[in-house]
Amino acid sequence: MRLWELATGKPAGVLKGHEGSALDVAFSSDGKQLASAGYDRTVRLWDVATLATVAVLPGDEGYRVAYSADGRLIASCSHNRHVRLWDARTYDELAILPHGNRVHGLAFSPDGTRLATACGDNTIRLWNIASRQEVCELRGHEAYVHAVAFSPDGTRLASASGDFTVRIWDTVPPSVRARPPDAPVPPRD
Amino acid sequence: MRLWELATGKPAGVLKGHEGSALDVAFSSDGKQLASAGYDRTVRLWDVATLATVAVLPGDEGYRVAYSADGRLIASCSHNRHVRLWDARTYDELAILPHGNRVHGLAFSPDGTRLATACGDNTIRLWNIASRQEVCELRGHEAYVHAVAFSPDGTRLASASGDFTVRIWDTVPPSVRARPPDAPVPPRD
Repeated sequence: MRLWELATGKPAGVLKGHEGSALDVAFSSDGKQLASAGYDRTVRLWDVATLATVAVLPGDEGYRVAYSADGRLIASCSHNRHVRLWDARTYDELAILPHGNRVHGLAFSPDGTRLATACGDNTIRLWNIASRQEVCELRGHEAYVHAVAFSPDGTRLASASGDFTVRIWDTVPPSVRARPPDAPVPPRD
Repeated sequence: MRLWELATGKPAGVLKGHEGSALDVAFSSDGKQLASAGYDRTVRLWDVATLATVAVLPGDEGYRVAYSADGRLIASCSHNRHVRLWDARTYDELAILPHGNRVHGLAFSPDGTRLATACGDNTIRLWNIASRQEVCELRGHEAYVHAVAFSPDGTRLASASGDFTVRIWDTVPPSVRARPPDAPVPPRD
């Protein structure tokens, strides 16, 4: 990782770490920490001011990484059927959230209570952050789900899919499940 | 596009439009409008309340779509070397921003004055939204740039690249350019 000063056009510092392509980056809400997800199966955390490596979080081949709005949680999705959840301060791995197929996208709800994941098995999973349990599985798409996004107030979730449709889901109340959360979902690709 | 009510598990509405895979979705900051980017070379805008199609914006094979923080601008990047910028209210195409290669990611600065784009020619381009001109081209990565993110205060930009590095760029002041903005950049893949 390098800090380049545009005022001079020269790098002010070089930090290295990933041993594979870096695919995504995200700043914490206070701007002090940066997370990067790599093909080297790590998520790395960096101190933006000192450029020091803060933590190397072993995981999966990183594809997307995101902080919760309060900056306390980090989630990463990969093509290895796992979504991992870490504490951004203690660097503890809080959960490995299983999926039936590769996970293309993820989004924290604005209030930080939910994580939505876009899965290659045509589903969207909604996870309860506190309990680390699946709240519900949103079924309906007829092809992979590539991206998800919460509305700013968190009451809606939008999903984009290979079935040519975009869907909007009402996330309040998230009390009714399309199927039991413990029922397995067969891979579809 | 379908609206599903989780409280009942049934769709409350079905909207269709895209004639190819939908790859990304984004809500406007007020939550009233949704943008989706598709392989059918359109960005579609939807009214979240009525589920009506608001506009069909002809463009490129959509890959990522984003609103500016104030919700007035929409940008989309694609693998067709173009980034397009639209007015989210009038639906006018404001600019087609040329790139030397496919564009993997994009991010508006928090204040809405800049757009950063992550390009397959190893560069990051920083665009002035008001003038629709390239402010500078950030060079240094030795492989494609896959993602970019602004810090919450907009003073830093982070980039993730296939060269195994993550770089942080100082975006204030964005007055010094690595090279003249009108010099061509040869494609590299």
